[in-house]
Parts: sequence; C-alpha cells; structure tokens
Amino acid sequence: MSAPESRTTAAPRPAPRWAREAKPTPEQEDFGPADGAVRRRLYRIIFQHDTRSGLAFDLCLIVAIVASVLIAMIDSVAPLHARHGHVFYALEWGFTIAFTAEYAIRLWIVRSPLRYARSFYGVIDLLAIIPTYASLLLAGSQYLLVVRILRILRVFRLLRLVRFLHEARQLTTALRGSARKIMVFVFAMLAIVTVFGALMYLVEGPEHGFHNIPLSMYWAIVTVATVGYGDIAPGTTLGRLLSSMLILIGYGMIAVPTGIYTAELASSLRARSHEDARRCRQCALAGHEADAHFCRNCGTELDPADGHRDLH
Amino acid sequence: MSAPESRTTAAPRPAPRWAREAKPTPEQEDFGPADGAVRRRLYRIIFQHDTRSGLAFDLCLIVAIVASVLIAMIDSVAPLHARHGHVFYALEWGFTIAFTAEYAIRLWIVRSPLRYARSFYGVIDLLAIIPTYASLLLAGSQYLLVVRILRILRVFRLLRLVRFLHEARQLTTALRGSARKIMVFVFAMLAIVTVFGALMYLVEGPEHGFHNIPLSMYWAIVTVATVGYGDIAPGTTLGRLLSSMLILIGYGMIAVPTGIYTAELASSLRARSHEDARRCRQCALAGHEADAHFCRNCGTELDPADGHRDLH
Amino acid sequence: MSAPESRTTAAPRPAPRWAREAKPTPEQEDFGPADGAVRRRLYRIIFQHDTRSGLAFDLCLIVAIVASVLIAMIDSVAPLHARHGHVFYALEWGFTIAFTAEYAIRLWIVRSPLRYARSFYGVIDLLAIIPTYASLLLAGSQYLLVVRILRILRVFRLLRLVRFLHEARQLTTALRGSARKIMVFVFAMLAIVTVFGALMYLVEGPEHGFHNIPLSMYWAIVTVATVGYGDIAPGTTLGRLLSSMLILIGYGMIAVPTGIYTAELASSLRARSHEDARRCRQCALAGHEADAHFCRNCGTELDPADGHRDLH
Amino acid sequence: MSAPESRTTAAPRPAPRWAREAKPTPEQEDFGPADGAVRRRLYRIIFQHDTRSGLAFDLCLIVAIVASVLIAMIDSVAPLHARHGHVFYALEWGFTIAFTAEYAIRLWIVRSPLRYARSFYGVIDLLAIIPTYASLLLAGSQYLLVVRILRILRVFRLLRLVRFLHEARQLTTALRGSARKIMVFVFAMLAIVTVFGALMYLVEGPEHGFHNIPLSMYWAIVTVATVGYGDIAPGTTLGRLLSSMLILIGYGMIAVPTGIYTAELASSLRARSHEDARRCRQCALAGHEADAHFCRNCGTELDPADGHRDLH
Repeated sequence: MSAPESRTTAAPRPAPRWAREAKPTPEQEDFGPADGAVRRRLYRIIFQHDTRSGLAFDLCLIVAIVASVLIAMIDSVAPLHARHGHVFYALEWGFTIAFTAEYAIRLWIVRSPLRYARSFYGVIDLLAIIPTYASLLLAGSQYLLVVRILRILRVFRLLRLVRFLHEARQLTTALRGSARKIMVFVFAMLAIVTVFGALMYLVEGPEHGFHNIPLSMYWAIVTVATVGYGDIAPGTTLGRLLSSMLILIGYGMIAVPTGIYTAELASSLRARSHEDARRCRQCALAGHEADAHFCRNCGTELDPADGHRDLH
Repeated sequence: MSAPESRTTAAPRPAPRWAREAKPTPEQEDFGPADGAVRRRLYRIIFQHDTRSGLAFDLCLIVAIVASVLIAMIDSVAPLHARHGHVFYALEWGFTIAFTAEYAIRLWIVRSPLRYARSFYGVIDLLAIIPTYASLLLAGSQYLLVVRILRILRVFRLLRLVRFLHEARQLTTALRGSARKIMVFVFAMLAIVTVFGALMYLVEGPEHGFHNIPLSMYWAIVTVATVGYGDIAPGTTLGRLLSSMLILIGYGMIAVPTGIYTAELASSLRARSHEDARRCRQCALAGHEADAHFCRNCGTELDPADGHRDLH
Repeated sequence: MSAPESRTTAAPRPAPRWAREAKPTPEQEDFGPADGAVRRRLYRIIFQHDTRSGLAFDLCLIVAIVASVLIAMIDSVAPLHARHGHVFYALEWGFTIAFTAEYAIRLWIVRSPLRYARSFYGVIDLLAIIPTYASLLLAGSQYLLVVRILRILRVFRLLRLVRFLHEARQLTTALRGSARKIMVFVFAMLAIVTVFGALMYLVEGPEHGFHNIPLSMYWAIVTVATVGYGDIAPGTTLGRLLSSMLILIGYGMIAVPTGIYTAELASSLRARSHEDARRCRQCALAGHEADAHFCRNCGTELDPADGHRDLH
Repeated sequence: MSAPESRTTAAPRPAPRWAREAKPTPEQEDFGPADGAVRRRLYRIIFQHDTRSGLAFDLCLIVAIVASVLIAMIDSVAPLHARHGHVFYALEWGFTIAFTAEYAIRLWIVRSPLRYARSFYGVIDLLAIIPTYASLLLAGSQYLLVVRILRILRVFRLLRLVRFLHEARQLTTALRGSARKIMVFVFAMLAIVTVFGALMYLVEGPEHGFHNIPLSMYWAIVTVATVGYGDIAPGTTLGRLLSSMLILIGYGMIAVPTGIYTAELASSLRARSHEDARRCRQCALAGHEADAHFCRNCGTELDPADGHRDLH
C-alpha cells in the first residue's frame, strides 16, 4: 500500500500518474514554518503529523472538536438546555477560548499568516470561533451558534494523518475522474425534474398540494430519487400515471451514477495495481505486463525475478 | 461488440470504434447552410459551435432559455404572480419575440427548412414559442403556458458544444448498448407490478385504500422502486407480508439495471482504451501502454506515430 | 450475436459453456407434435415461432392477453364497472372462450397432453380460463376473477420468440450464477431485520405503533430497503437512533446485491466476447487471447487473419 | 493485494490466495475435543459437520432455533398471546431446557470450556437460554424475553456447514477488503448529515417538526439514504431547497459504496481466476485457460497437472 514512496527515477521521465496526482492540492496545508526554533517546533506539532507530539496534538484536537460539536447538538434539545444550559455555556466558552488560542498560534507560526487565513481550513478555523463571540454582541444571534456545527469540517483536515489517507484519495480520485460524467447526468436529471414538475403542476394543481412549479419540482426530486416523503402525493389518475413513469425513470437512472463511479473506480484500481507491477532494472519504469519480456521504455530485457523486489 | 476484428492486421484498418460512432446521428443538427454569404455566415454562428461568435451566440441562447424557464417557474407562485405578474408578462413577451426571431432565422438559413422544422429540435423550438401566442387567442390557455417549461430541452442541443460532448456520448452509447436488456428488465418489472397489484387489491381491498387494480399497481410501483410515499400503505397482516416480499424484490432488483449499465459502461471504456492501444510492427502484439517505446514481447522499437494515427 | 450456431466441432471436446447452458430448460416448450399432418402443422404454428403464420399467431395471442388483462384491471374501477360492466362482462367471456379453444387445441396437438398440462405454462394456461367459469358456479368468486391477471405471465412464453431472447438469457444466466451469493445476502438481511424488529418492539412498544414483533419486522424491512412508507415511524430518541443505524446498514447493504450481480454479469459478458474471439484452423477451438500465436488446444500456429472469419 | 509475487517461479510456491484465506479464523470453532471416546464422538457430532450424524444434529438444531424464534415472534402478538399464551410458554420452556442441555454438553466435551464460553458463539449460546430463566426471578423481565430473538444469530454458525460457505466467504472477503474505504465514506456521510441537520434546524425550526439538532440529523439520515418516512418534512421554501440538495447528494452518493464493493468483488473474483491459471514451463507465461494444452506464446505443451496442483 505504502510502497511507492521509494520510486525515485534514475532517468528523466514523467512521473507516474499517481505521483502527479499526489502534488500538494489546495486542501493540503503546506504553508511552511516561520523562522525561529520555537515556531518551527510548534509548526511541526500543529501542522504536521509525523511526530509523537504532533500525533498527540491531533488526537486532542479531534476529541475537542467532536466534544464541542456534541455539546452544540445537545444544547439544542429544549429540556436539556433548560436544565443544564449553564454547564453547556461554560463548556462552550472553554472550547472557544482553546480554539481561539490555537488559531492565534497557527497564525503566528506560519510563514505567511495571510495565506493561511485565506486557505479553506483557515476560514473554517475562524468560523469555528466567531459565532460564540458574536452571540455576546448581537441579539437573536443564537442562530449563529448553530454555525459552530461546521467545526465538524475541521476533522477532515485530520483525516489525512490517519491511515485512511490513501483510501480517501482513491475515492476522491475516482470521483474527480467521473465528475464531468456525473455533471452531465445531474443536468439531465434537472431537466427531467423540471419537465415533470411542470406537468404535475398542470395535472394535479393546487388542490392536491402542487401549489406552484418550484414546489412540484421539489416533489419531483423527492420522487425521482426514491425518497418519497409523502407530504405531497398525486391525487388524480393521470398524476399517478405520471408519477409511476417518473419513479421508473428514477429507479432506472440510479444505475447511471453507480455505473459511472464503479467503472471509474475499477479502472483506477486496475491502473494502480498495474503501477505496483514489475520494474525495469535499467530505467526503473514499473507497471510492465505480466507477460512482458522487455522494458517498454528502454527495451532492456526484464529480470524475471524483478517483480518481487518491490514487495519485500 | 464487433470491435475486435481489426486486431491482427497492421495494414489499413477501419477507424476505431468510438470514431465510427461519432458519425452524425439523427439528433445532431447538420442541415447544411442555404446559399448566400450572409446565410452561410449566420448558419456558422447559429448552428455551429467552433467560432468565437458561434460560441457567444450559444451562451446568450443558454442564458435566455434558462431565464425564461425560471420566469415561468416563479410566475406559477401565486403571491409572486399577484405582485410582479406584469413584469413577468412583459419579460415573457420579450423572450417569446426573441425566440420567434431566432426560429425564423433558422428556417431562413438552412438548406431545407422543412427538414429542420420536422427535426426533433425544430419541433422543440416551435413548441417553445407557440404557447405564448396561443394564450392571446384561447381562454383557459394559461395551462398552455406551462408548456414553455419544455424550452429547457433546448439546452440539450447546446450541451454538444461544450466540453461535455464526449462524456455525454459515452453515457448514451452505454445506455443504447444496454437498452434491450433494460427493456427486458422493465417488462419483467411491469409483470411483477401487475401481479402484486392484483393480489394486494384482493387482500387489502378498498377499506385500506386499494380501491382498484390500477391504483394497486401505482402502489406496487411506488413500493418496488423503494419510493414509499405512504399515501397508501397495507393494513392487514397478509398485505404486509406481501409488501415485504415486494420490497425485497425491488431492493434486490435494483441490482439488475445497475449491473447492466455498469457492465456495459465498463466494457465500452475498456474497449476504447484497447482500441487506442498500439501495435508492434514486428510481432503484431497490440495493447502497448501510451508511454511504451519498445514492444513488450519482442523488444522491437515501436513506431511513435502508430498510437496517434487513430486519433486524428 | 447469433453467430455461434455454426460452431460444430471437428474433434471431440466438451461443448463450450454457452452451448451447455442452451440445453432445453423446463421453461422451454418442446413437447413434440402428435401424429397427423393437421396437428403437426398446428403445432408448428402454435408452439413454434419460426414461420410467418406462427409469428402472426403469437402476435394475436399477445394482443388478446394484454387486452384481457387491461379489461380485468379497468373492470376493478368502481365507476367504470357501474357504467360499462356489461361490456367488460361480454368481452371477458369472449376472451375466455377463445383461450379455452386455444387450450383445447394445445392439448390435442402435443404428443403427450399430460406432460403439457403439468408443465409450468400448461398450468398458467389453465389458470387463465378457470376463474371465469368458476364465477358462474360459486358465490363471492368475484375475487377469483382477479386471478385472471395472472394471464400476464403467459406473455413471458412469447418473450422467447422475439429478439429479446438472447438478452433475457444473459440476464437470467447472470442471476442464476449469483443466486447462491444473493441467498446468503438475503439470509443475512432477514437476520438483521429480525434483530432490529425485536429491538424496536422493546424500545418503542405499542404506543408508537410497534404493536408486535412481526409488525416491527415489517417496519424494519420497509426501512432497510429504503422504502419508508411512514405509516409506522419511531417516536423515541433511542428508537430514532436505532432507525438511523438500520437505515445506514440498508443504504450500505444495497451495494452487496448490486456488486454481486454486476461482477457476475461483467464476467459473463467477458466470457462471451471471449467465445467470439479467434478460432483455430485445426481444432476449431475459439476464444484465443489477442496475443496468442499458437492454439492452446492442439499447438497449431494460429492464422493471424483467422479472427475475422467468425464475423463475416 | 499481495498475490502476484509468485508469478515468475515454477518451483514450490505458496498456496493460492483463496486457500490461504481458508485458515481457521476466530469465528471458526476449533476448540479441540476433550479426552475420552464418548466426548470425542460427541464433539465430532456437535462441533463438526462432516459426518452423517453431525449433519443430522445440525439440521435438528436449525429447526429448533427457527421454531423457538418464530414462537417468540408470534407470542408478541397480543390476541395470540391471550389465547395460546400457555402453549407458547410450555414450548418455550421445552426449547430452553433443550438448549441448556446442549450448552452443558458443549462445555463438557471441549478441551478448554472457558475458551468456548468466552468465544463469540459461546456467549450467544448462553444469551439464548438466560432470558427464560431470568423471567422467573425478575419482575418486568418480559422485556428480557425479546432477547431470545438473538438466537437467530446461532444459525450463522451453521451456515458454514452448508454449501454456502464458499459464497459467504467471497462476500465477506470483499467486504473486509473494502471496509476502510467504506469507513471513510460513512464518516463523510456523517459530516454531511451533521451539517445539513444543523442547517435545517436553523431554517425550519421547531414549528415544522425540527425540534432540535439530533432530531434534524435523524431527518437528514432518513433523507440522504432515500428512506423518506415523511414523519418530518420541510415546510419552508428554503428548507425544501436544502432538502433537494441533500436528496441529490444522497442519490449520487449511493454510487460510492456500490462502486467500492463492486470493484472490490470484481477484482477479487478476477484475482482468484488468475491464481488458478496455469504457467508455461518454457516461457513462464501464466494465465492459460483451463482447457489449454499448449502455451499460447511459445507452443510448448503444458504440464496437465500444473493447473490442478493448486486446487488439491
């Protein structure tokens, strides 16, 4: 799984596909530490995940995030809020102060604080602490407190440190590879939803709950995706016939995104297992077919035992 | 399906499968321009998508279509209609006149106006303008106005210009390839729905909402496709047992269209990547990787242009 | 598609896989005609589908079946029954007499009438006519009339004649190949449904509609298959937590039958396209790999152009 | 995953992948019999499935388990309990005493009773008999009786004896192989559910049934998994827009677990068929068909025993 790291090439040639995709993406945080030993050490702990203390920090952060999100959830339950509201309030301030300190330190230790503050996770980090302060200043800002739930997104950053990194990348690579096909599909679906929404508005009308076309389109989405709340349901025979058609379309169309994604994932898995296959002694190109006798890049005869070296 | 025939020849061979499928299909508009420089130029702008002005025209058209559809939607919301109805009315007439002018120009510039008028998109173009005029003549024709929503289908024509052309074609090729299998599946499903609908009418009867067999079949479709509105639900023990069976059938059967489509899409993706592969002059082995310089079987240097000839 | 018929072998070897599967199955009607020229000719028309008159008979039969099923459906709609009941009654007797005559002729022309009468379609043919006669003798047998809907199953017999035969066989072959895996899956699902049904009965109890364990299991099936009528829904916090778990299980588990069926279908498609591949001049074995130079059965060198002969 | 290493050696090689996976797993019961001829014989009957009497015992056990579970289900139906409660009570005690005897014998005949008692199925066996005894001692313990339903899990142990062993293993192997990917997916889904639950609580609020965030998250799970009970449904326009987005996400995301599982299952099926393939002594080309007598690359005669050694 993690074998490919050592694949540095002897001869100049384009990096293999997976390596090109491993280039730091906008989501990856690599701002570089500011100068100074303390800041460098803190950077290593807070932004990187390869040391013992870095790992411990990450674990604490996950626990704090999940705990603060759970408290925000529980706090929304009226009876619990009435009885334990002050405890939740105190805990919430504790977490907010801790996260504020963490945010300040992050700003302090990166080489370019502005770049960090404007990065995706920099914004999320800020959004995680603003609502609590805002609730002091603004009336009616208890709604803002729900924004604290967005803190859960901060956990995604830490996902990278654990062993799921590789799995997550495979999934998102396949998603990205199939993104355009899925957009075509989503567009076709929206057109179907629009047409059926308009037809049902005509056929059923306000007396059966289809008050206007946007509402009918909401019903059409609920139907085509096989959710079917039943808050709006057809009441006429023609409406039921149209519904049945839309349902069959939705039931059949679920095959399309599944097919797209499965085919993409299967082919990316195949490509990867390919990458791990035999390597040329001369030019270090890997991925030779099982029945190849000569390197497809430089023509050198392949060592039949060569395929093993990668794996041991 | 019949792709493998050219596998063994290095000599002139038929174009690769995907290229052959790129032949103009009935959906593609290729009516040919009428004579005259102005008309030819307008044809190039309106019917083709490879010039700067053609692209600009397409973008304007998409914006106009989407805007007019959005207005038709919003206009159906009673309070908005009451307050801003006259604005929507004016805008609607503006769009209608613009689309009418566009339709007239299209008729004027194609070599055979009749062929265009009877083509799929020709009919849609006409349907997009008729309802507004009809609403002047006929009472109660506000229902006709909903037909304007069908304008959304006009966007599909423009789908072809953007970069999604290739993706859309892959999806529809796989759909067409699996169409007969899916028809067999839909027929089997209709038979199941009929039988279960009749049984539930017997078992539950009008007192639980199963008033007649067509209504029971509507319920069966809602159930088998896992939509489950709940407007009609079984009330007896035997009815619930039958429902459970139908639900399990539906849950299991969703695998069938998905399987059909996925297998078709995967095999068409594979076929394509195979067709694109290169062939050794010496030993005729095909399927070389895109970055191969030497045959993996006999070590002969591969003709660099060989892999590309397919693509141009 | 229909090329493989001519695959008679030169040397004794086991028939290819698809041929072994093409052996007459119980569903296939091959009773053999009784003696006598008239009977033989009628047999060819009624039981076989390769003559002009046989095809015409099949089409008439399909029309009659579908029409009689539609009438049975429409007749169940109370207002239509009140107004046109006598017309439906007359038409129903017309169809019943025609089907009775057809059944009698079938019995007369097959070599072994008993074998036909006990075959699957023989029983269906009988079930299609009994209810109408029974309604004369028995009071309250209007329920029996719904059994007429089962006539729809007769159409399946005729499915074989049309061009969908091949597609239907591929689908059912893959279903049969994955049947045991799907049974394991269904058993696991029933166990999950049983356990969650019992837990929800404990947690929610009769006051939220979970009156007994079988009813709770019905709810669990409705939930795990993502149908969700909403006629029974959890009312307690713990119940909602359990529901959420069950829903996630059901949402994830839908991958299993789909995965099973897709993998099976894909591999059977691959196997088939394999069968169509290159054929040895010496021993007529087909299905050689694209890079094979020698027949894997007899070692003869393969004709590089040989792969084409099948297809022209 | 690490299967390909033996590809190049014809010499003694590790057992094929599927055979290595057949090693006793923790779930498999292999405690070893205690000393003594009687105990050894009983062990063979009760714990193993390869003798006639062992099979008969297994069948009796399945019948008893299923019967006792069915009785527990039916007993929960109020009218049946009122009328036949004493019969169910007697039968329940009969089954409980039989299962107790079986449990005692199992403890007696294994080499290490403690290890058996703490194994998964040992605990299940105990849980299957405790509730009935507990109902004598504790008031209100009729709730405990529902725990008897867990007996259904005992049948899984016996699943192994039947021919479905191999199918079940393929399915679970693919599940285990995709477990980490599916965990990433479940985590992403929980985050989406949390965010949408919080947003809907903000937008809809208690007046439309979204009383608190945990309840909103329950609604979000019901929606994203396309269940859609309809007990809680959005009532505002913005809420319906958010719902539509969530529904589309859920409808698209169902592709992800399906894709993961299908790709895994397909690749494990392919890997197996590959492992079983044969290798040429001369040119070391593997992957010969089962019916190949000659290498498809160099024409050397294949060792007929080579392909079979794997399988015995």
